[in-house]
Amino acid sequence: MRILELNKAYTLMESGPVILVVTHDGEMPNIMTISWTMVVDFTPLFAITTGRWNYSFAALRKTRECVIAIPAVDLLDKVIGIGTCSGADTDKFARFRLTPVPAERVTPPLIKECLANIECKVVDIVKRHNIVILEAVAAHVDTVRKERRTIHAVGDGTFIVDGRKIDRKAMMASKLPAGL
Amino acid sequence: MRILELNKAYTLMESGPVILVVTHDGEMPNIMTISWTMVVDFTPLFAITTGRWNYSFAALRKTRECVIAIPAVDLLDKVIGIGTCSGADTDKFARFRLTPVPAERVTPPLIKECLANIECKVVDIVKRHNIVILEAVAAHVDTVRKERRTIHAVGDGTFIVDGRKIDRKAMMASKLPAGL
Repeated sequence: MRILELNKAYTLMESGPVILVVTHDGEMPNIMTISWTMVVDFTPLFAITTGRWNYSFAALRKTRECVIAIPAVDLLDKVIGIGTCSGADTDKFARFRLTPVPAERVTPPLIKECLANIECKVVDIVKRHNIVILEAVAAHVDTVRKERRTIHAVGDGTFIVDGRKIDRKAMMASKLPAGL
Repeated sequence: MRILELNKAYTLMESGPVILVVTHDGEMPNIMTISWTMVVDFTPLFAITTGRWNYSFAALRKTRECVIAIPAVDLLDKVIGIGTCSGADTDKFARFRLTPVPAERVTPPLIKECLANIECKVVDIVKRHNIVILEAVAAHVDTVRKERRTIHAVGDGTFIVDGRKIDRKAMMASKLPAGL
């Protein structure tokens, strides 16, 4: 995987892909599937909605680290499988045959099979809304992977796959950060 | 536009579409384009990232009401136009030839040309992260409109259009709210 400049990492998240969040509780890594996410700042900062109902939340709160792994559509059934079982009784890397790769700045591993991985630190937890604020500290992209379409959850058990891309860079020039 | 049950309204937002946020400052309505959004609760509650850098923020903070209007891809160039000019000196409904339709529960109007409109009240502003928490109080969907594909901003001036939809309702059954 190639290193992605941090000031470009928000572009991995802004379109609203379903993500995998990798944590490590000190004993072993775990993975959860999350589709309630947003960009909060170009630096980048991200927000995700999670709480005690996710087994991973305890590790996230304790260690204040995670990896956001972004799957492509060929991983959809693994993504759903990860989201419908619990780390309380499942080694998800083993069960879903995913390959952990050591991260540079955090303890949770990257997921080799994903399109991109963003190493994050928890910078705040807004308890009253179950919102966790993450700061990216390193980002990696698989530049050779063929399937690059991400997945968008509708929330009713259906998923939308990325369709065609439309270029409006010229119209958007006044709104894009410098050096993008 | 047909009324959509509130417990289904989060499905309009979970996939991460670019949205239009309609406010009303007491004198006239205004519109801004936002792609930093997420679902926070099934009820539904939504989070959007906005602040003083958006002219609409003053009206949103003062009136604590808005309409989330969800455009389809045929409106892309209007969506970008709305996002790259300011309500400080522009009547956006007039300039972009959009039709305001009275809402039921809030003062800002719906946008007739959009795929869906969600009337919202501001329930909280998390100042330290520029996050506004919105509670939906009514939702409307245009059920006859032909173009139904939404737009996802990458953040670099390109946009991804909804592609094909994949049904995994059976696999997801354990995670879906009752009555969806």
